[in-house]
Amino acid sequence: MGNFKGHALPGSFLLIMGIWWTIKCILKYAFKKQKRTSYLDSKALFRRIEILEGIISVGMTLTGILGEQFLPGGPHLILYDYQEGQWVQLLSWQHFTMYFFFGLLGVTNILSSTIISLPASFSKLMLSNALFVEAFVFYNHTHGREMLDIFVHKLLVLVIFSAGLVAFLELFTQTSITVELLRTSLILLQGSWFWQIGFVLYPPSGGPAWDLKDYDNIMFLSICFCWHYATAIIIVGAIYAFVTWTPLPLKRALCLLGLLYNQVLYATL
Amino acid sequence: MGNFKGHALPGSFLLIMGIWWTIKCILKYAFKKQKRTSYLDSKALFRRIEILEGIISVGMTLTGILGEQFLPGGPHLILYDYQEGQWVQLLSWQHFTMYFFFGLLGVTNILSSTIISLPASFSKLMLSNALFVEAFVFYNHTHGREMLDIFVHKLLVLVIFSAGLVAFLELFTQTSITVELLRTSLILLQGSWFWQIGFVLYPPSGGPAWDLKDYDNIMFLSICFCWHYATAIIIVGAIYAFVTWTPLPLKRALCLLGLLYNQVLYATL
Amino acid sequence: MGNFKGHALPGSFLLIMGIWWTIKCILKYAFKKQKRTSYLDSKALFRRIEILEGIISVGMTLTGILGEQFLPGGPHLILYDYQEGQWVQLLSWQHFTMYFFFGLLGVTNILSSTIISLPASFSKLMLSNALFVEAFVFYNHTHGREMLDIFVHKLLVLVIFSAGLVAFLELFTQTSITVELLRTSLILLQGSWFWQIGFVLYPPSGGPAWDLKDYDNIMFLSICFCWHYATAIIIVGAIYAFVTWTPLPLKRALCLLGLLYNQVLYATL
Amino acid sequence: MGNFKGHALPGSFLLIMGIWWTIKCILKYAFKKQKRTSYLDSKALFRRIEILEGIISVGMTLTGILGEQFLPGGPHLILYDYQEGQWVQLLSWQHFTMYFFFGLLGVTNILSSTIISLPASFSKLMLSNALFVEAFVFYNHTHGREMLDIFVHKLLVLVIFSAGLVAFLELFTQTSITVELLRTSLILLQGSWFWQIGFVLYPPSGGPAWDLKDYDNIMFLSICFCWHYATAIIIVGAIYAFVTWTPLPLKRALCLLGLLYNQVLYATL
Repeated sequence: MGNFKGHALPGSFLLIMGIWWTIKCILKYAFKKQKRTSYLDSKALFRRIEILEGIISVGMTLTGILGEQFLPGGPHLILYDYQEGQWVQLLSWQHFTMYFFFGLLGVTNILSSTIISLPASFSKLMLSNALFVEAFVFYNHTHGREMLDIFVHKLLVLVIFSAGLVAFLELFTQTSITVELLRTSLILLQGSWFWQIGFVLYPPSGGPAWDLKDYDNIMFLSICFCWHYATAIIIVGAIYAFVTWTPLPLKRALCLLGLLYNQVLYATL
Repeated sequence: MGNFKGHALPGSFLLIMGIWWTIKCILKYAFKKQKRTSYLDSKALFRRIEILEGIISVGMTLTGILGEQFLPGGPHLILYDYQEGQWVQLLSWQHFTMYFFFGLLGVTNILSSTIISLPASFSKLMLSNALFVEAFVFYNHTHGREMLDIFVHKLLVLVIFSAGLVAFLELFTQTSITVELLRTSLILLQGSWFWQIGFVLYPPSGGPAWDLKDYDNIMFLSICFCWHYATAIIIVGAIYAFVTWTPLPLKRALCLLGLLYNQVLYATL
Repeated sequence: MGNFKGHALPGSFLLIMGIWWTIKCILKYAFKKQKRTSYLDSKALFRRIEILEGIISVGMTLTGILGEQFLPGGPHLILYDYQEGQWVQLLSWQHFTMYFFFGLLGVTNILSSTIISLPASFSKLMLSNALFVEAFVFYNHTHGREMLDIFVHKLLVLVIFSAGLVAFLELFTQTSITVELLRTSLILLQGSWFWQIGFVLYPPSGGPAWDLKDYDNIMFLSICFCWHYATAIIIVGAIYAFVTWTPLPLKRALCLLGLLYNQVLYATL
Repeated sequence: MGNFKGHALPGSFLLIMGIWWTIKCILKYAFKKQKRTSYLDSKALFRRIEILEGIISVGMTLTGILGEQFLPGGPHLILYDYQEGQWVQLLSWQHFTMYFFFGLLGVTNILSSTIISLPASFSKLMLSNALFVEAFVFYNHTHGREMLDIFVHKLLVLVIFSAGLVAFLELFTQTSITVELLRTSLILLQGSWFWQIGFVLYPPSGGPAWDLKDYDNIMFLSICFCWHYATAIIIVGAIYAFVTWTPLPLKRALCLLGLLYNQVLYATL
C-alpha cells in the first residue's frame, strides 16, 4: 500500500461501490412507493442482484487475499519468522484481516438472499462489523509516523467508524432512506479520502511529498475533508434526482444494467 | 473574525434564528393539536415559510461567501500561494466551508418543501451534517492559542456537537416537541456563547482582554456557560407560554408575521 | 463544602430523594397494572404529589441559594471584586448554578402537573439537563488537586453523567420501569458516593485524611464504588419487593404517606 | 490470576456460556417462528432452563467467592491490615466484586423466571450492569504494568464494554435475534481473548513471555483480536446452521439436553 496506486485502488473501489449502493437504495425506495404488481418482480430482481453482489465481493476478497499473500514480496501465509524472531509483514496481514471481514459480509449477503428464513438484518450486522474492524485496524496502523500522516489516517478512521456506527444504529430501528443515504455518502467520502491520502503522502506527479510537520497543512486538510464530504452529498443528491426522475421502464432497465454490470464484473474476475 | 464584531454578528444571527425556530416549532405543535379544518391551511403556510427560509439562508450564505472572498483582504478564491509556498488565509476558507454547508441546508429546505415526494427527514439530516461540520471545523481551529481561548472554543464545540447529536438522533425516532425545543435551546446557547467569546477575547470597551492564563477565569466561564444555558431555557419557556396562550387568530397572524419578516429579510438582501 | 458535613448533607438528600423516587415509580407501575376504577384516583393523587415535590424542590433550592449567598462568609451576590481584581468565591457560585437547575426542574414539575396541555416529557428533559449541568460543573471542579481527590470526583462525574444519559435516552423511547429504576439506582449511588467522598477527604473521626498519593487507595476506591452500586441495586430490589407485596389499601396509604411526608417537609422549610 | 490457568479458566467458562446462550437464543427464535401448540410447552421448558441457569450461576459465584477468599493465600475476608497500614490483596477483592455482580444476575434470572409479574428486562439490565462493572474493574486493573500487558487488557475492556453496551441498548428496543447473537458473539470473543492473554503473558510451554515492549507485538495482537472475532462469528454461524436445520424433535431434545447439562453442572457443584 505504500504508494499512490495502493491508495487509489481501494479508493476507486469504494467510490464505485458507494455510487452503486446509492442507486440501489433509491431504486428500492422508488419501487416500494409504487407498489404495483411489478413490485414482486422487482423484489426478485433485487434478490438476484444481492446474490451476485455477494459472489463478487467474495471473489474480490479471495483475489485480494491470494494476491497479497502470494505475489512476490508477500508473506506466503507465513506469520512468524522463527529464525529472525520477528513477525512477517504485518501490514499485509492487516489487509488480509480487512478483506476477510468484507468476504464474510459477502457470504452473509448470499446466504440471507437465498435462504428466506434468515433475518435480513444479518447482512447489516456484518456490514457494521466489517466497518468497525476496518476502523480498528486503521486506528492501530500509524504508530511512529509523522504528524500529518497520522492526521489523515485519523480522519479516515473517523469516516469508517461513523459509517459503522450508522449501520449499527440501523440494527435498532426500522429502515429509513435518509439514514441509508447517509451511510452511502460516508462510503463515498471514504473512497475519495483514500485518493486524497494518496495525493498527500505519495504525490503522483513525482514531486516531493507535502511537508508532514507543517501545521498549516493539517488545517487545510481538515477543511478539505469537509469539501470531500460536501462533494459526496452533492453526488448522492444528483443520483437521487437522476434516478427519481427517470421513467419507470428506465428504472427497471437500470436494475438490469446493475445486474449486468455485476455479471460483467463477475466474468472479469 | 478576529474582533468583537466578527463574533457578535454570527451570535446575533444564531439568536434570531433560534428564537424564530422555537416559535415555529411551538406554532406547529399548537396547530397540530387543534386539528381543525384550518390545519390544512396552516400546513400550506408552513410550507411557504420553509421555502422562504431556505431562500434566505441560501442568499445569506452566498452574501457571506462572496463578502468573505472578495472584500479587501480576502483570499479572492485563491487557495494556495505558489510563490510564497503557503496556504492563503485558511481562516477565511474555514468560514467558507461552514457557510457552504448551511447553504446546502437551505437548498434541501427549499427542495423538500417544493417536491412532495422527498422525505422530510432530508432537511434534518442536512441540519445535523451542517452542525457536525461546524463542530469539526471549530475543533481544528485553535492550534497554538492560549489556554482560555482554547477553553471557550472547546465549549463552543461542545454546544454545536450536542445540537448536531440531537438532530442526528431525531433521524431515528418520531418527532417530539421536547426534543425539538432542546435543539433550539442549544442553538440559542450557541448564539449567546458567541457573544460571550467576543466579550472575553476582544472586550468592546476597548479595555485589555481577560487574562488568558488565569485558571480562575476558566472556572468562572464554565459556570457562566451554564448560566447562558439557563437563560436559553427560560427564553424558550417564555416563548412557549407566549405562543401557547395567544388566541388562534393571533397565532395565525404570528405565522404571517414570520412570513413577512422572512420576506423583509429577503428584500433587504 | 470543604468539610464532612458539606458532603454528607447533599448525600443524604440524594439518598432520600432516590428512595422516594424508587417507591413512586414502583407504585405507579403497580397501579397502572391493576387498572381498576381506582386508577383515575391514583392518577390525581400522583399529580398532587408531583406538585408538592416541585414546590419542595423550589423551596429547597431557594433556601440553599440564599443560605449559600448570605450566610457569613458567602459572596453576598458579589461576583467580581474589582478592588482585588479577582472572582469572589467561585465554589459558592458553582453550587448556586447546580441549585438553580434543580430549581428549574422543580418549576417544570409544578407546571407540567398543573397545566395538562404541557408534554410530560418536559420534566424529564429538565432532569436530564440538571444532571448534565451538575456533571459539567463537577468536571471543571478539581483543577490542581491531588490524584485521589481528582479520582473520587471523576467517579462522581461518571455517576451523574450516566444518570443524565439515561434520562436523556428516556426522551427518545416510551417509559419502561426497568430504565426508570436504573436511573433511581444511579441517584442512590450518587448519594452514597457523596458520603464516601466525605469519609475519604475529611474523615469525621478527626483522624488524618487518606494518603492522596497512594495508588492502592485508588484501586480500593474503584472496587468500593462497585460495592456502593451493588448496595444501591439491592436497596432498589428490596423496595420493589416491599412495595409490590403490600396489599392495595396499604399501597394507597403509602401514597398518602408520601404526600404527607412531602407536606411535612414543606412545613419545616 | 497471575498464571496461565487463572486466565484459561474464566476463558473456558465464558466460551461454554457463550455457546450455550447462542444455542438457547436460536432455539427460542425457532420455536417462536413455528408457533404450534408446542410453543407453550417450550416456553415452560425455557423458564425451567432459566431457573436452573440462575441457580448454577449463583452457585458458581459462591464457590468462586469462597474459594478466592478462604483458600490458602486468600484475604480471608480481611480488607485492611491495620498493622502494616495497607490493603490486603486488592486483586482478590476485584475478582470478588465481579463474581458478586454475576451472582446478582443469577438471582435476578431466578426471580424473573419464577415471579411472572416481574418485567423480563430486569435480567437484561443486570447483565448490562455486570458487564459494565467488569469493564470498569478491568479498566482500573493495569496501573504501572508494561505496554503490551496494558494493551491486551485494554482490548479486553473494549469487548466487555461493547457487550455491556449492546445489552444496555436492548433495554430501549424490542428484542431482535441479530442483536442477541451480536451479544453472544462478543461473549465468545471475550472468552477466547482470555485464553490469548494467558498465552501472551504466561506461555504454558514454560518458555519466556513475549517481549512486552516490542511494538510489533502490539500490532500483531490488534490483528489477532480481529481473527478471534472472526472465529467467534463463524462459530455462531455454524451453531445457527446446526440448530436451524435439525428437525423439531431433535430441537426439543437439545432443549432437554441443555436442561440436563445444566442439572449435571448443578450436581457437580
